Amino acid sequence: MLHEESIETLFKEIRSGSRRALARAVSLVESTVVADQDLASELLLLCNSFASPSRRIGLTGAPGVGKSTLMESFGLALIEKGHRVAVLAVDPSSKKTGGSILGDKLRMPHLSLHSDAFVRPSPSRLALGGTTVTTRDAITVCEAAGYDTIFVETVGVGQSETEVSDMVDLFLLLVLPTAGDDVQGIKRGIMEMAHALLVTKADIDDQATRIAVATYTSVLRLMIPSMEGWATPVLPVSALNGNGLDSLLELVTRFFDPSSSPSIEAQRRAQRKKRFSSDLQHELMSVLRANSSIQSIISETEHEVLEGSIPPSVAIRQLRSRFAITISERS
Amino acid sequence: MLHEESIETLFKEIRSGSRRALARAVSLVESTVVADQDLASELLLLCNSFASPSRRIGLTGAPGVGKSTLMESFGLALIEKGHRVAVLAVDPSSKKTGGSILGDKLRMPHLSLHSDAFVRPSPSRLALGGTTVTTRDAITVCEAAGYDTIFVETVGVGQSETEVSDMVDLFLLLVLPTAGDDVQGIKRGIMEMAHALLVTKADIDDQATRIAVATYTSVLRLMIPSMEGWATPVLPVSALNGNGLDSLLELVTRFFDPSSSPSIEAQRRAQRKKRFSSDLQHELMSVLRANSSIQSIISETEHEVLEGSIPPSVAIRQLRSRFAITISERS
Repeated sequence: MLHEESIETLFKEIRSGSRRALARAVSLVESTVVADQDLASELLLLCNSFASPSRRIGLTGAPGVGKSTLMESFGLALIEKGHRVAVLAVDPSSKKTGGSILGDKLRMPHLSLHSDAFVRPSPSRLALGGTTVTTRDAITVCEAAGYDTIFVETVGVGQSETEVSDMVDLFLLLVLPTAGDDVQGIKRGIMEMAHALLVTKADIDDQATRIAVATYTSVLRLMIPSMEGWATPVLPVSALNGNGLDSLLELVTRFFDPSSSPSIEAQRRAQRKKRFSSDLQHELMSVLRANSSIQSIISETEHEVLEGSIPPSVAIRQLRSRFAITISERS
Repeated sequence: MLHEESIETLFKEIRSGSRRALARAVSLVESTVVADQDLASELLLLCNSFASPSRRIGLTGAPGVGKSTLMESFGLALIEKGHRVAVLAVDPSSKKTGGSILGDKLRMPHLSLHSDAFVRPSPSRLALGGTTVTTRDAITVCEAAGYDTIFVETVGVGQSETEVSDMVDLFLLLVLPTAGDDVQGIKRGIMEMAHALLVTKADIDDQATRIAVATYTSVLRLMIPSMEGWATPVLPVSALNGNGLDSLLELVTRFFDPSSSPSIEAQRRAQRKKRFSSDLQHELMSVLRANSSIQSIISETEHEVLEGSIPPSVAIRQLRSRFAITISERS
């Protein structure tokens, strides 16, 4: 258990490059224990003031598309160029498995052992509360620790792509070279959120890869680009033989080029605004839920709405006339 | 100004088929005047209990794609088959123009005059508050008035497609036969929300229409279908010569086939649940906003979050420790 003095020590250790301290810090900001929250706030304020310019890159794609393999080779390539790389995972599926701590390290064996990399296993306590909420704070901590390139990976179950897209600058969608063959099952809006599509495993079948690139390129031409003035590229990559990694590096560099930075900062502002507003709404809802008698009346009303016996607008007006909400400053 | 006794009268007039009464009723549920809201609730409860089975059909597409022209001919075709057709419009752009009351009637000259049709012009007071919120209530009123097929049309500015998709059963996306030529500017996720794509103005250019149908068909094959077990069709239609209207009618009939009704009812339940939850959140936020001193502290905090000087999660925790929210039953 950490206490106040130890936060400054922990912060200094993080700044000095200790990966063990960083792991403990990430655990703290991910903690759902109430007693940890003030400490987490204190640490986050320290980290926030020290955070240096960074590149936040999201990665999504179906299981088996090759996210980890790509991260392993691309992460090592970035380190070779002098970068420090952190990998965070948002994996809603680990609710069931209780995390994949060994899994992540095994899937990125060289990267996870490298001294310029920090591979954070999927959080294992997801059942207790929001994972993606704390992932944003984990990014802040990693940035304070001097990691300039932060990857956030998700398998894309539920709403996780949208949430990851809302916390990164560059969002990459990985697809298999099977377009035209069958349904890939790409979800709502994901393709338009992506700043680039990567056709993985490009080493397996040249022709399939070419068809996939052409198909996705024509699909994207129908859609509004993910960012103004940005034409979403479709890149074939092979983590196995390294083909395409240079183009990917060039793409990342171009995306984060200082001349485009204004729009990245604008995007980050919009992300913070969105998060603050949605967190505030969740906070208010949790106050409602905390009062069990009111919660039961709301549940009853919701049940009537679901059954169709009362229109939602009428239900809200009835609740409004029934309850008084007062907000006061604590003394 | 309506008062209580007149609500029952109004309701009877609606039930007896008066289109004038229906227009007044829709205006009442769309009203943002506080004094009207209790009356609106009363009317909605009456309408809700009388609502008969109906088909709610959403229609979206860029301006000029031919929504009104299609509605005019398809609406009349449905009336010929014995249906009664209502057309509601969600047009965020009318915020600027102050509504398009003449416009809608002019764009559907025969349908709007037909005794088995009710064409509701775009609401003109959008600046005062949510349009789509009240459109759902307008649907309820039209259903009580015996309209069995309700069209909700939107030009798709901002979030309106998502909102319309959340209040209808069948959602149609209209596109021009120009796929392959240039960017159509289709927005996030719209294509996957659609239960069918209609390639309009199919009379103009046979080859362009065929290419468009093929392109959209292959795009859809990459995506998760809008409804389980439903393969989203791409239909060429011409409102001018009537080609494709039979296929569209067949499609609508198939979609609303009683054997698929369970999934439509499940979808309606999910829509009601989503709306109730989002209305409740809005309600709570409006309570916050109503208190000006608290609102100013929240704005200040939000500003700090936007500037990046404090992480959103810390901001929320600070607000939590600063304010007490109490909810009590009104006596």
